[in-house]
Amino acid sequence: MTDAGRDTAQRTADTLELLAKESQLWLSTAAADGTPHLIPMSFVWDGERMTMGTAERSATVRNLRSRPVARAAVGHHFDVVLVDGSVDIIAPEEIDPPTADAFALVASDPRQLPGYLYLRLTPRRVLAWRSFPERPGAEIMTGGRWLA
Amino acid sequence: MTDAGRDTAQRTADTLELLAKESQLWLSTAAADGTPHLIPMSFVWDGERMTMGTAERSATVRNLRSRPVARAAVGHHFDVVLVDGSVDIIAPEEIDPPTADAFALVASDPRQLPGYLYLRLTPRRVLAWRSFPERPGAEIMTGGRWLA
Repeated sequence: MTDAGRDTAQRTADTLELLAKESQLWLSTAAADGTPHLIPMSFVWDGERMTMGTAERSATVRNLRSRPVARAAVGHHFDVVLVDGSVDIIAPEEIDPPTADAFALVASDPRQLPGYLYLRLTPRRVLAWRSFPERPGAEIMTGGRWLA
Repeated sequence: MTDAGRDTAQRTADTLELLAKESQLWLSTAAADGTPHLIPMSFVWDGERMTMGTAERSATVRNLRSRPVARAAVGHHFDVVLVDGSVDIIAPEEIDPPTADAFALVASDPRQLPGYLYLRLTPRRVLAWRSFPERPGAEIMTGGRWLA
């Protein structure tokens, strides 16, 4: 820890801890015409991916079918993790049971909700900062690889 | 208050109170190629608009110059206000002093930061809900007019 804030290794450790314990995020997608969309979602982190659930007829699913990328924000305004990545849409009958069981502990279970499905965000770039001086050096994953 | 949650008038009153007291939001924009962007921002609400400040060379400003629309989220995952609207970019020398003075109480002052400017989001549509059963009836502003 310097005046510039946490180093990359510490930010990465803090981020992995946050992703493991947190179950709520903000998910941003964009419509085909470029209109931004933003919605709160529940999620579980399996060590590599974030799994969410939502209604098939939601704007988020419509946007992701047009362009399967999203940015998620986890944490608070002054202790934030931002995750850019690609999103796969997974039918309830195709989800792996351990992930589905973990997700059912934090949100309504898409396997029990007609018209619901899973979204799975695979991080490609991750930023983490706690304060304005920490903005430089925020990038802790790029190209799908942790830098630390 | 019914099993379906707060009525439109109560949601509107709660929303106006939240916007007046809260100073942090999540702002979603989209790049010209449709890539979604999401960032925490400080803001002040003047009763009609949300004013924020950011760096001119930020992705948010680049996105807004391409397509001047955004969605903001204020509050928490289970007590959320979502605001869709158009965004004006305002130079520090053009901001009205009362708004600039109010903003300087919650964030760094763009008038003192070279390369910074103001963003002003004018709501066109507002949604407010606290729980899953409150999702129907969430719309409290449409076409720029409060429904209550």
